[in-house]
Amino acid sequence: MCSYVKALYEFSGEPNSSEISISAGEILQVTRTDVGEGWWEGKKTNGVVGLFPEAYVEVMSAVDVAKLKNPPPVVPPAPSAVVQSPDGNRYDDEDIDDWDDDWDNDDNGTYSEIPQNHHGTANNNNNIQKSSNIQSWQLPPTPHDDTTSLSSIQTGTGPVKKTGMFAKNSDPYILGTVNVSVPENEKTYIIQLDNFYFWQPNPHQYSVVVASPSKETKFKGMKSFIAYKLTPSFNQVSVSRRYKHFDWLHERLVDKFGLVIPIPPLPDKQISGRYEEQFIEHRRVQLQEFVDWMCRHPVLSKCEVWMHFLLCNDEKKWKSGKRIAERDILTGVTYCSAVFPPEKQLLPSSVDREMESFSKFIHSMDASVKNLVTISSDQIKRLQIQSKKDFQRVGEGLLDLAKAISIDEGRHNTTGSSMANCIGLTGGKFIDIGLLCENQPKADWIPFSDRLHIYRGVLSGYPDILATHKGACAKKRECVRLNSDNKMGQAQIVEVNRRTDIISYTVMAEMSHFKAERESHLKETVKNLIDEQINFYQKIIANLQEAQGYFK
Amino acid sequence: MCSYVKALYEFSGEPNSSEISISAGEILQVTRTDVGEGWWEGKKTNGVVGLFPEAYVEVMSAVDVAKLKNPPPVVPPAPSAVVQSPDGNRYDDEDIDDWDDDWDNDDNGTYSEIPQNHHGTANNNNNIQKSSNIQSWQLPPTPHDDTTSLSSIQTGTGPVKKTGMFAKNSDPYILGTVNVSVPENEKTYIIQLDNFYFWQPNPHQYSVVVASPSKETKFKGMKSFIAYKLTPSFNQVSVSRRYKHFDWLHERLVDKFGLVIPIPPLPDKQISGRYEEQFIEHRRVQLQEFVDWMCRHPVLSKCEVWMHFLLCNDEKKWKSGKRIAERDILTGVTYCSAVFPPEKQLLPSSVDREMESFSKFIHSMDASVKNLVTISSDQIKRLQIQSKKDFQRVGEGLLDLAKAISIDEGRHNTTGSSMANCIGLTGGKFIDIGLLCENQPKADWIPFSDRLHIYRGVLSGYPDILATHKGACAKKRECVRLNSDNKMGQAQIVEVNRRTDIISYTVMAEMSHFKAERESHLKETVKNLIDEQINFYQKIIANLQEAQGYFK
Repeated sequence: MCSYVKALYEFSGEPNSSEISISAGEILQVTRTDVGEGWWEGKKTNGVVGLFPEAYVEVMSAVDVAKLKNPPPVVPPAPSAVVQSPDGNRYDDEDIDDWDDDWDNDDNGTYSEIPQNHHGTANNNNNIQKSSNIQSWQLPPTPHDDTTSLSSIQTGTGPVKKTGMFAKNSDPYILGTVNVSVPENEKTYIIQLDNFYFWQPNPHQYSVVVASPSKETKFKGMKSFIAYKLTPSFNQVSVSRRYKHFDWLHERLVDKFGLVIPIPPLPDKQISGRYEEQFIEHRRVQLQEFVDWMCRHPVLSKCEVWMHFLLCNDEKKWKSGKRIAERDILTGVTYCSAVFPPEKQLLPSSVDREMESFSKFIHSMDASVKNLVTISSDQIKRLQIQSKKDFQRVGEGLLDLAKAISIDEGRHNTTGSSMANCIGLTGGKFIDIGLLCENQPKADWIPFSDRLHIYRGVLSGYPDILATHKGACAKKRECVRLNSDNKMGQAQIVEVNRRTDIISYTVMAEMSHFKAERESHLKETVKNLIDEQINFYQKIIANLQEAQGYFK
Repeated sequence: MCSYVKALYEFSGEPNSSEISISAGEILQVTRTDVGEGWWEGKKTNGVVGLFPEAYVEVMSAVDVAKLKNPPPVVPPAPSAVVQSPDGNRYDDEDIDDWDDDWDNDDNGTYSEIPQNHHGTANNNNNIQKSSNIQSWQLPPTPHDDTTSLSSIQTGTGPVKKTGMFAKNSDPYILGTVNVSVPENEKTYIIQLDNFYFWQPNPHQYSVVVASPSKETKFKGMKSFIAYKLTPSFNQVSVSRRYKHFDWLHERLVDKFGLVIPIPPLPDKQISGRYEEQFIEHRRVQLQEFVDWMCRHPVLSKCEVWMHFLLCNDEKKWKSGKRIAERDILTGVTYCSAVFPPEKQLLPSSVDREMESFSKFIHSMDASVKNLVTISSDQIKRLQIQSKKDFQRVGEGLLDLAKAISIDEGRHNTTGSSMANCIGLTGGKFIDIGLLCENQPKADWIPFSDRLHIYRGVLSGYPDILATHKGACAKKRECVRLNSDNKMGQAQIVEVNRRTDIISYTVMAEMSHFKAERESHLKETVKNLIDEQINFYQKIIANLQEAQGYFK
């Protein structure tokens, strides 16, 4: 995830939408990159938050951001800057709450998932309250990211850390300036099999069911929200989690693992229609996909914050666990301190070759997944709109013909299985097939698209991971030079080599895991698409065969 | 068929096409109404022939045409008026030759089906020759249409009669001013079954196969044309017929029967692409449809001109038969002289009711058939273009993904049934399905559309038939009035009543035949559509099942 972007082109946001207008050269703080469909969410310097096309901006380098951030300082949000788009439209509460949200505030009235038109003026109060802690996500530096040049721009006092955003620098870990004692339960082992490296499997395999959500209410129905029930297989005790809880979890996971393990994405945030049954059910399916991916991962599936998320049913314990998670220092590259690979020294040239090939693969797969996402979305639209219309038009055409013929059959008093009747019933079957088309994407292309969403998110995590690795290797080479110049001691260079190897091992273990995932999960994804298409065409045939029966 | 139309709107013909430009109010002589797709062909007063949209003109009443034709007379074609469109483009030979054609001239160089660019300047000679007999279709009055008010406008000396165009007036037949001796083989009987009237079935049922055409040449390859081989089941002797022979036959049939029996249409004339294999084969199928309809018809299937067309293999006999057919006087309403229905007098009110209901039915069926023609044509395009593209896009998307994955599999030296392989092969199956889509219309929607073409043509014949009947009934009522005023003798009024009844019987017999046709032929048409769609989806499933196999 990037933090600041500079607009390359002018963009005029659609009035009465969540879009914002931006001018070329304008700097925006990125608040979300997972909006989907090529949109990002960002905050203007005046505090206005909204969507803009990703393609219209360029991500600023840390150096540029630092330059920007020292003199002159960021213009603070004007006191009057409520969270509002330039055209006066406020956003769906969730999109802001889930993000600016302080978890502990859950019950103080700041967070509401009641649609705006349900509680009129109450919203204004919420907005004012929001504007007062609008920068709460900008936090003071924490011990393990004090080397980032950007710590100076962090302000505010909220408890949420966004270290992942700036902690890509692997130097402190490589140089050993960070030394963390790793608790036993955090230790992660890498094993070798043939010439490949794998995460040690989680001996306690389990699954978690995300159940059909219920609409829950608070404050005697004044506030309502959607809560999903999660039930792990190992204890069969359900916990109730809202989207914003997932969002918090996701942020923690990205913080902790994001530089070595790509975290599967959550479903896109939705601007409208959050209370529609279809949307809620679809989001449940997407959350299930996220949860499944987590459960299958040897490292993620046993990490503490995830377990806390799956198990905690007590508000007090929740808060303390939350605070522990937020204070975790085994994050970013430092997480590698918890990784224990084989002792064997790696051959840099061979590692480089692997990484280069993998990078090419990631780039190529990312493009093809993006392409398939577009194709899926076109197929969904085509089936739901065009194909439905086509079949129904044929059906109506035949019904029309049947009606015409029945005029003449009236002269003959034909009844029962008359010509008109047969053609009319056939018309009905075509209309039924139209309805099949409308419903079909739920079975084939939407699940396919949901799976691709996961892959897209995972793939998008790799460039950072590969860049981190590259940075570490560069640092190591620098150290080797220093060593040959006798500017670095032998003990230290051995440690630098080992730590670089640990990063390499980590990335390679994750590469192996990603391959295994594809071989089962992606295979299953394509198979499901094929299976469901077969079902679909079989249902069409069944309808046509009924029609065929009328003409026997 | 109508003879003259007045342009309601201005129309600008596409330059470099067969279209002509017309001004509002301009009078055009209609030369063809079966061009298809809403186009008619007409001749301007300056002799220029070309296509114009049917919807842009109104058909002139016989009275208006007469007014127009007496003073002032029609401007004769200027001597220089070769058959040329205003923009200087001549037409595809066949479209003119087949129409202005004198059959006997077949070998004198006036008729050529070689595309223009094959014989350069030779064309100019042809055109001059054409311009000299450009009005050859306007013929002197024949004995049985000497009461038509339009005979005065007929000029020229060519042998082809166009009496059908103006002989809609049933008065001469009703009043008995035409008395034709009917040869035994021409007599047609109508029988009663329950309350309905039917043509006596043709005891010699047969079929005719229109075989794959061959490209024949004349004059050592200087001229080439497409000849279809027709083989009747009763003698298994083939005759070779060109489209223009069909066209001549069709004209004769319309002339002879068109006011009581709708003649199935020929395939649309084609402006270009006449030598493309696909076009030739499609036309063969359409001609087969025409021939089948003829063979199934109790009256048409045994008429002399049709038999001549099916049997004659000798050039001399062909010419004499042709002349006999062209001199036939049992045409138009007069054809009813050959019809022998039951003696029973018909109840006018009951006949009126039948006709009214039938007229409503024809109108309604015509609209729904037109609608289905549009739907079919959209379906054909959708399958051949959009669906093909869609499936191929999915296929290519999967191939792309396979290619991406193979980069990573390269690291692992995976071979054989690797993930990339499975996905790639699946992509191939989707591309195959795309090809299925492209070919599918040949099996379902194109034959459906061809059948509808026949119905459209037949339906379009009914308004004239019903109008003829209405005219006869009106004339009869007039005679009844004359009789009650003692201005018409009893013997004569009995004859008038009987003749009007014969027209009614004839139309009702044809109505019954049309119903029977629908019940077998149209039913089969819809059934074929369904059968072929089932086949199609089964083929898709077979492909998908192969893909499914890759993931087992």
